[in-house]
Amino acid sequence: MTPKRARDVIRAEYRGSGQLAVTAGVPVEPGPGEVRLSVAYTGICGTDLHVIHGHMDHRVAVPGVIGHEMSGRIAALGPRVTGWSVGDPVTVMPLAWCGRCPACRAGHTHICHRLTFMGIDSPGSMQSSWTVPAGVLVSLPSDLPLHQAALVEPTAVAVHDVRRARLRRREKVVVVGAGPVGLLIALVARVAGADVLVVELDAHRRRIGADLGLRMLDPNGDDVAGAVREWTLDAGAAAAFEVSGSAAGVALATNVLATRGRLVLVAIHPTPREVDLHRFFWRELTLIGARVYQRADFERAVELVARGDVPVQPLISKIMPLAQAADAFGELERGAGVVKLLLDSREVAS
Amino acid sequence: MTPKRARDVIRAEYRGSGQLAVTAGVPVEPGPGEVRLSVAYTGICGTDLHVIHGHMDHRVAVPGVIGHEMSGRIAALGPRVTGWSVGDPVTVMPLAWCGRCPACRAGHTHICHRLTFMGIDSPGSMQSSWTVPAGVLVSLPSDLPLHQAALVEPTAVAVHDVRRARLRRREKVVVVGAGPVGLLIALVARVAGADVLVVELDAHRRRIGADLGLRMLDPNGDDVAGAVREWTLDAGAAAAFEVSGSAAGVALATNVLATRGRLVLVAIHPTPREVDLHRFFWRELTLIGARVYQRADFERAVELVARGDVPVQPLISKIMPLAQAADAFGELERGAGVVKLLLDSREVAS
Repeated sequence: MTPKRARDVIRAEYRGSGQLAVTAGVPVEPGPGEVRLSVAYTGICGTDLHVIHGHMDHRVAVPGVIGHEMSGRIAALGPRVTGWSVGDPVTVMPLAWCGRCPACRAGHTHICHRLTFMGIDSPGSMQSSWTVPAGVLVSLPSDLPLHQAALVEPTAVAVHDVRRARLRRREKVVVVGAGPVGLLIALVARVAGADVLVVELDAHRRRIGADLGLRMLDPNGDDVAGAVREWTLDAGAAAAFEVSGSAAGVALATNVLATRGRLVLVAIHPTPREVDLHRFFWRELTLIGARVYQRADFERAVELVARGDVPVQPLISKIMPLAQAADAFGELERGAGVVKLLLDSREVAS
Repeated sequence: MTPKRARDVIRAEYRGSGQLAVTAGVPVEPGPGEVRLSVAYTGICGTDLHVIHGHMDHRVAVPGVIGHEMSGRIAALGPRVTGWSVGDPVTVMPLAWCGRCPACRAGHTHICHRLTFMGIDSPGSMQSSWTVPAGVLVSLPSDLPLHQAALVEPTAVAVHDVRRARLRRREKVVVVGAGPVGLLIALVARVAGADVLVVELDAHRRRIGADLGLRMLDPNGDDVAGAVREWTLDAGAAAAFEVSGSAAGVALATNVLATRGRLVLVAIHPTPREVDLHRFFWRELTLIGARVYQRADFERAVELVARGDVPVQPLISKIMPLAQAADAFGELERGAGVVKLLLDSREVAS
């Protein structure tokens, strides 16, 4: 699919039943308080895969444009937008809250009871031109390559998760699962001064982690419990992050913790899991749910990625044109050898 | 069984296989750093029932004296005991820790990895004369009736649990299960300024709670979820205490919580439980394990009971002579109409 005119928009649209179609359209002109973005890159998230599988049809409009891990530049300003200029490099914190529900009133707007997550509950960034409220923009430094900036959003997730863990310097931390978010948590925790060990089934992901200087273990081949005992002089880990989404991951993260250890629950577990509550009681463990991010997490993520404190380049396995979105989803689906896959909408950006 | 001489000790001994026998013996003279106590009262704890059922045979010596919720007076001082006098009213914080394990080194001595819990792992207080290290003594005010002082230990559990919840004034709190510890948590939370709702299946316990001015609901008859929604203006409770030990209790405590709510896990769940981890993620809930108490909890418990801020008298269902210990266990076993049952060892105290 090739755009017909310079100002055409190309979009990857979810059509329901596992179907993704690339179509052309016209840009949405920004209304009051809105900006139109030329999208440069959008990362494909695990959530996007869930959408394509039809698991989120109760939330996603059909046809609908998904995608929320993005970078781009401001292409046009709507009326009454101040503080921004055309050409500014930006990313988006893709949350819109109601401001009136009990969560919002308590200050937890990021987990508003009526949260709109852009790219799921409203149109997303898998298009060359995206019109959004100016309030969701997050400024990017001009020297940060835009393909790296597409990883600011998952890095903000990791910053939030690490903050929820209240990590202290020199604490020993286990991360269970080394997908993009798991690896980013490990990297952010390292910047926070923690000593990190990562557990991952997939050999390719273990290699990426090892190349980043992380200590990687294979739960199938290595004696993880024994390694943690030895590493922590029998104390156990101060914190563990469950990023695998598996029952085995929950059990492992619970078992490696020290007395008063904190287990941060990052992954989505759609069905209830058996949890060893006796161990939570016996060792006075804490389980901490962590979801998305707050503005401070996003701004910290920009800083970490821009400075290279969190080196995201090795996580980018491949960049494919937006027009090949369906192939890109297929490639991510097959999984092996892929960490993060980006869609490039630059060549068609208006 | 009647003691033969004034200085005989009467003991309720666990003999294994559900058997409790009352026997006579001679007092254990206190060694260096020890004191001998004349035990006045010992409360029967749920843990003691577990022992009698044979569920803790891996920890309890047979024959062995159990019991740990006690009050009494100092009867004799061993060598090198300072700061205490014969006749002082005391209770005991029944923990002995190793001081060397990772938990102890991190300052969590109360959940030492090699914790000795007196009355389970070493001889307890269901005897007229009990010899203990002076370090476990907790001083009682002279005007606190000793039968009430026997409830200081479970009150210390409640103080610890409420402290783990980090309750703030005016927070709305749900307590699931109104056994002695559940009721004490509700009373301690009320002293901390929280607004408390208690859920309990047993009508007698609900009546005791209501007489104490607590708002009591029946999970079988009342719409607890609806009541909490209405009470909290749709927000949910800031904290919940799981004191029922049941799968339904875990589910209920999880469901009533507000965004960022804290679930304090007090009850023992011997086998893993299904937990709605998605809700923990979605609402950023926290699960907090809480076990026994620290010295500060015990001292605060003495204060609360002595001042009447936590009125323990209504929780004392019956006081029976130590010689009738087996009957007392039977009565507690049958359950109905009983909250806390005390054994009286005064008439035989040496």
